[in-house]
Amino acid sequence: MEKTPVAVLGATGTVGQKFIALLQNHPYFYVNELVASPKSAGTRYKEVCNWKQDSFMPAEVADMVVKSSDEDLESLILFSGMDSQAAGPIEETYANRGHLVVSNAKNHRMDPDVPIIIPEVNSDHFDMVLRQKYAGGIITNSNCSTMFLAMVLAPIQKAFGVHTVHVTTMQAISGAGYPGVPSMDILGNVIPFIGGEEEKMETETKKILGTLRGETILDAEMTISAQCNRVPVFDGHTESVSLGLHEKASPEEIMAVLEAFTGPPQELSLPSAPEKPILVFREDNRPQPARDVWKNAGMSACAGRIRPCPVLDIKMVILGHNTVRGAAGAAILNAETFVEMGYLKALREKDSLPVCSG
Amino acid sequence: MEKTPVAVLGATGTVGQKFIALLQNHPYFYVNELVASPKSAGTRYKEVCNWKQDSFMPAEVADMVVKSSDEDLESLILFSGMDSQAAGPIEETYANRGHLVVSNAKNHRMDPDVPIIIPEVNSDHFDMVLRQKYAGGIITNSNCSTMFLAMVLAPIQKAFGVHTVHVTTMQAISGAGYPGVPSMDILGNVIPFIGGEEEKMETETKKILGTLRGETILDAEMTISAQCNRVPVFDGHTESVSLGLHEKASPEEIMAVLEAFTGPPQELSLPSAPEKPILVFREDNRPQPARDVWKNAGMSACAGRIRPCPVLDIKMVILGHNTVRGAAGAAILNAETFVEMGYLKALREKDSLPVCSG
Amino acid sequence: MEKTPVAVLGATGTVGQKFIALLQNHPYFYVNELVASPKSAGTRYKEVCNWKQDSFMPAEVADMVVKSSDEDLESLILFSGMDSQAAGPIEETYANRGHLVVSNAKNHRMDPDVPIIIPEVNSDHFDMVLRQKYAGGIITNSNCSTMFLAMVLAPIQKAFGVHTVHVTTMQAISGAGYPGVPSMDILGNVIPFIGGEEEKMETETKKILGTLRGETILDAEMTISAQCNRVPVFDGHTESVSLGLHEKASPEEIMAVLEAFTGPPQELSLPSAPEKPILVFREDNRPQPARDVWKNAGMSACAGRIRPCPVLDIKMVILGHNTVRGAAGAAILNAETFVEMGYLKALREKDSLPVCSG
Amino acid sequence: MEKTPVAVLGATGTVGQKFIALLQNHPYFYVNELVASPKSAGTRYKEVCNWKQDSFMPAEVADMVVKSSDEDLESLILFSGMDSQAAGPIEETYANRGHLVVSNAKNHRMDPDVPIIIPEVNSDHFDMVLRQKYAGGIITNSNCSTMFLAMVLAPIQKAFGVHTVHVTTMQAISGAGYPGVPSMDILGNVIPFIGGEEEKMETETKKILGTLRGETILDAEMTISAQCNRVPVFDGHTESVSLGLHEKASPEEIMAVLEAFTGPPQELSLPSAPEKPILVFREDNRPQPARDVWKNAGMSACAGRIRPCPVLDIKMVILGHNTVRGAAGAAILNAETFVEMGYLKALREKDSLPVCSG
Repeated sequence: MEKTPVAVLGATGTVGQKFIALLQNHPYFYVNELVASPKSAGTRYKEVCNWKQDSFMPAEVADMVVKSSDEDLESLILFSGMDSQAAGPIEETYANRGHLVVSNAKNHRMDPDVPIIIPEVNSDHFDMVLRQKYAGGIITNSNCSTMFLAMVLAPIQKAFGVHTVHVTTMQAISGAGYPGVPSMDILGNVIPFIGGEEEKMETETKKILGTLRGETILDAEMTISAQCNRVPVFDGHTESVSLGLHEKASPEEIMAVLEAFTGPPQELSLPSAPEKPILVFREDNRPQPARDVWKNAGMSACAGRIRPCPVLDIKMVILGHNTVRGAAGAAILNAETFVEMGYLKALREKDSLPVCSG
Repeated sequence: MEKTPVAVLGATGTVGQKFIALLQNHPYFYVNELVASPKSAGTRYKEVCNWKQDSFMPAEVADMVVKSSDEDLESLILFSGMDSQAAGPIEETYANRGHLVVSNAKNHRMDPDVPIIIPEVNSDHFDMVLRQKYAGGIITNSNCSTMFLAMVLAPIQKAFGVHTVHVTTMQAISGAGYPGVPSMDILGNVIPFIGGEEEKMETETKKILGTLRGETILDAEMTISAQCNRVPVFDGHTESVSLGLHEKASPEEIMAVLEAFTGPPQELSLPSAPEKPILVFREDNRPQPARDVWKNAGMSACAGRIRPCPVLDIKMVILGHNTVRGAAGAAILNAETFVEMGYLKALREKDSLPVCSG
Repeated sequence: MEKTPVAVLGATGTVGQKFIALLQNHPYFYVNELVASPKSAGTRYKEVCNWKQDSFMPAEVADMVVKSSDEDLESLILFSGMDSQAAGPIEETYANRGHLVVSNAKNHRMDPDVPIIIPEVNSDHFDMVLRQKYAGGIITNSNCSTMFLAMVLAPIQKAFGVHTVHVTTMQAISGAGYPGVPSMDILGNVIPFIGGEEEKMETETKKILGTLRGETILDAEMTISAQCNRVPVFDGHTESVSLGLHEKASPEEIMAVLEAFTGPPQELSLPSAPEKPILVFREDNRPQPARDVWKNAGMSACAGRIRPCPVLDIKMVILGHNTVRGAAGAAILNAETFVEMGYLKALREKDSLPVCSG
Repeated sequence: MEKTPVAVLGATGTVGQKFIALLQNHPYFYVNELVASPKSAGTRYKEVCNWKQDSFMPAEVADMVVKSSDEDLESLILFSGMDSQAAGPIEETYANRGHLVVSNAKNHRMDPDVPIIIPEVNSDHFDMVLRQKYAGGIITNSNCSTMFLAMVLAPIQKAFGVHTVHVTTMQAISGAGYPGVPSMDILGNVIPFIGGEEEKMETETKKILGTLRGETILDAEMTISAQCNRVPVFDGHTESVSLGLHEKASPEEIMAVLEAFTGPPQELSLPSAPEKPILVFREDNRPQPARDVWKNAGMSACAGRIRPCPVLDIKMVILGHNTVRGAAGAAILNAETFVEMGYLKALREKDSLPVCSG
């Protein structure tokens, strides 16, 4: 199979770097263009990028000259790790020019014609992309905290029905990007507030778990209350969750549906798909971010301590890798699924894509 | 006023050290005896104690020879910072010998004739001490996480009624004593489990907020669900809390009752009493353990982010200093209140105390 | 004694806040004016300051309207916690207008007519202030890492002579101010570089330990090599030091001269003077920043593990509180000493101070 | 090639677990036996091991029944991750029975007939193993801090001669094993002492860099002074180093010899050999443990900030992964080199090995 050329928008940022790291040696895609703000454009990537990944900067991008986000691009698929302050109109412009924008930014998530996709959960929402107003299209993934909650809720919702969710998060510093949280604010500390995060968890989750009816999504009917905290953890968001169910279920029944859960990425054996989307832990003190966040290459949600809740029905601990499955890895899996389910072909046949030859 | 001689049981441990630090220059009490396990007994305190406090070891205890917990003691009041593995029978023995044991250990908290006291909340439960089977008596304070929850619930319960409590804790490492949590388990990590802690929060809270009827306490009628996590914070337990109320109340009304709350320690201007038992924060990112845990010398509960909860009625963040108001400071304030409300006098008149001349 | 009005320059920054916290209830000085950059000026302090101290913001400054650093000031003494990017010309301007600028900024430290003062070590260097070109004057304290090294070297230099110093630092994040070090750079990490820090240690130390000859200082003759690292510690710089001595000395002899060391602040019983400038530890694992940095209210240098060095003569561990004795506390002690040794009176008599009536 | 059966001694400990993780899918060796203290023996590994690695426990060991360290073993090569309190006589016993013990324990390192091997540096010292008094043999690797110092010194020593070494370490908590350092001692702290560590660095380094003359090693002639600190870093020992050289060399010359350095593991393309034993960093703030410790799979020493030293000649920062190249990975590379250089064959031919059929 010939590889598809892709661009990374916001290539110097935390999420952009993670896109580059995860796309190295990818069987479907190769990084063809790096895009950043005009002030970084025209310079070699290695000279403008403060590389923060554990691995070395891939040789094939180090000398690539960074393009500006107001230039025309030639790649078909654009992975966007842009900051939300700039992402909105730029992503829209590129979608209008015929590109498929696979975005991690929050800006278009709640647009009525843009889906928030978790391919194991709601790959049918990809249909919306074919009906968007753009020559190309926009796909988003959820906020990082929402991701793991929605992944775990999905099979429980299907099997037993969920009417109420209470979630308290303990989120990693890498979720705030770089420079992000000053060390004087978080070393040995908890910050009991993350701007906009609680609202995202309370709204995005219902859209992801919602039902596509014609051109719009009917939100899932459930009440969600989120309390978000920042803790001195590098990678990995931990969530203490309680659920109210329509149909009672024992912890063992919950564990069974979580462990049995799979979706199109697993059926299609996609390159970034974890063998199991949800890893269930039976030890009483797991999952833990510093121990478990890299299990299944950071692409699974982890769930443990599944037990009865005196207030609602079931409580548990959820964990996931916020910059992998919670950000760049999610977008890449979205693109893989979009391609392999035939949506990319359908999108290109929708009308002649004006720009992209990749 | 002549000072009352006191002993510290478990004097070499984390809580025992905190008793010693907080009792330095105390206007009512002076440390007269230090008690530890038989293997430390007979040695000078400075030679057996691995002192972990910020302040210097007080000169008056450094050369004191440690007594064994199987010896007779001469002090009237015994502050117990003993480990729960040993505390049960030893505290009982000393109570039988006529001492007033003011304990931070969990062992006797749920005894039907022993109160768990927060003097601003349930000082009337001190009556139980006069009816105990002991020649002396046993008073306990709650578990550290329970303390701050119960302090904040008390005025809300009184004003509006609380039927449901959902709480997720993020607890400091000092709560596990020394050596306690291995650094490899907690550096940059969250441990989503603390043995026995959730059960304590779910039971002790109801006893503290319960009603003394005759000789026993009727538990407060409320449903509590606790999820307890350890985080890499030195001192200070943070709690994300949601409450279901019998009578609806706005965040402003909740803040008003919390700020107006006082009790006997404030009315009696006791030496360890904070000016306000509850400090209300109006900034959206406070309270924080590393910033706020020492406010009011660590003797107040802090509450902030008081706002509506989509699932229950009100949600908020609670914080307190787990080894001060959550442990040694709580016990000392219990003793001060017991003395100044006349209970110590009443207890001594109950019958001739056989041992203690202090 | 009537209190002297003082202003705090850079009042909203980390060092400025520490000045305000330490000057609360000061017996000689009261905070009369708060000065910050023009963009903060004209607003109440509590509205522009992101207060990061453990204690509450003092009520007497909370409502004070912040002045701009280009305004005239009325206070006699100006404590400068300004950022070095702005401090240079502003401090000079105020000195020209007759104020005594007691500065923590690096800008004028190496000026030939400005002393770097540690009052226990080189209070005779205050003489330089009377001969400065300013109507008022400028006094500086050293860089925070230099402070503790120079304090410990001073008595050893005097007793035995020091020809060589090798020092490796492990410095706290609070030394970089706020927002300072991003948490993603330092959580669970060591950064083996602090810009300009090694040079400061290698030059300032020799000036402090130098000899005033006429109008200039002859640097102390010693070779210094510094290696500076940032570590995930909140407050307290730890330094591993090796010394080459002119006259051999045993560890016990070194400890004796360190413990006997005092200076004018101790002789004059100044309010901010620690009882002992140097605290000697004999345990093999002390001093430690999280345990010992607040000993003597953060105003002493701590020294421990004093033992022979196979390469040079003596090695040891040094520790001090970088924002107290290493910054704001140092400047305040400088001002106290300057006043009580009669220098302020002499400076004001030098010629009629044109501006300051305080 | 048929794989050689190996046993892991101390299989439940931190280093033992790392052996198991690193030996998974090893092309030369397979884990045939797990050995632990008698109290763990007779139980399945997954039931006695508190697995702390990031990866899952390999399926092939999970159900293996643990053997006791007083049983006979059948594997030819025994990797010892035993605690030093027990390792001495047990390793000796197995060596007497004909096994090759490849040990990370300190007990036999300084035995006159046992080499401390870094295969890039002193593989000729393997000759000593053939002359040991044992039917089998004992090979050791150095202490973790010594490892990275000796690796970096070796090529500099060869090219320019080193007469003096001054080193200050900042060591990770994983170096102390589990439970190891209590979190209350190290969170936000520096402990300026690690028992025995300074002595090991000062003695082992000279043995590794020494010359084999007949049956004994002549220590390298250099003076070493070490100061060892524990810092709140999970993995990775950082070292600030100054060197005195016999022949002057510029930083560029030093970097050139470090980058050119290779040895038998590279020449033989051994499975655990890093492409380059020493990674040179030219950025001014690298290497850093949290960023660089996994470069080259944790098997290289990292060196950076190579610059002139005012006291000695050259100073630099060294970093390495203490539990990989500093422990289990070192031992495995030692075994690989021993096998591929023909020493294992020679050892077995020395006399008929009585026990081991592997």
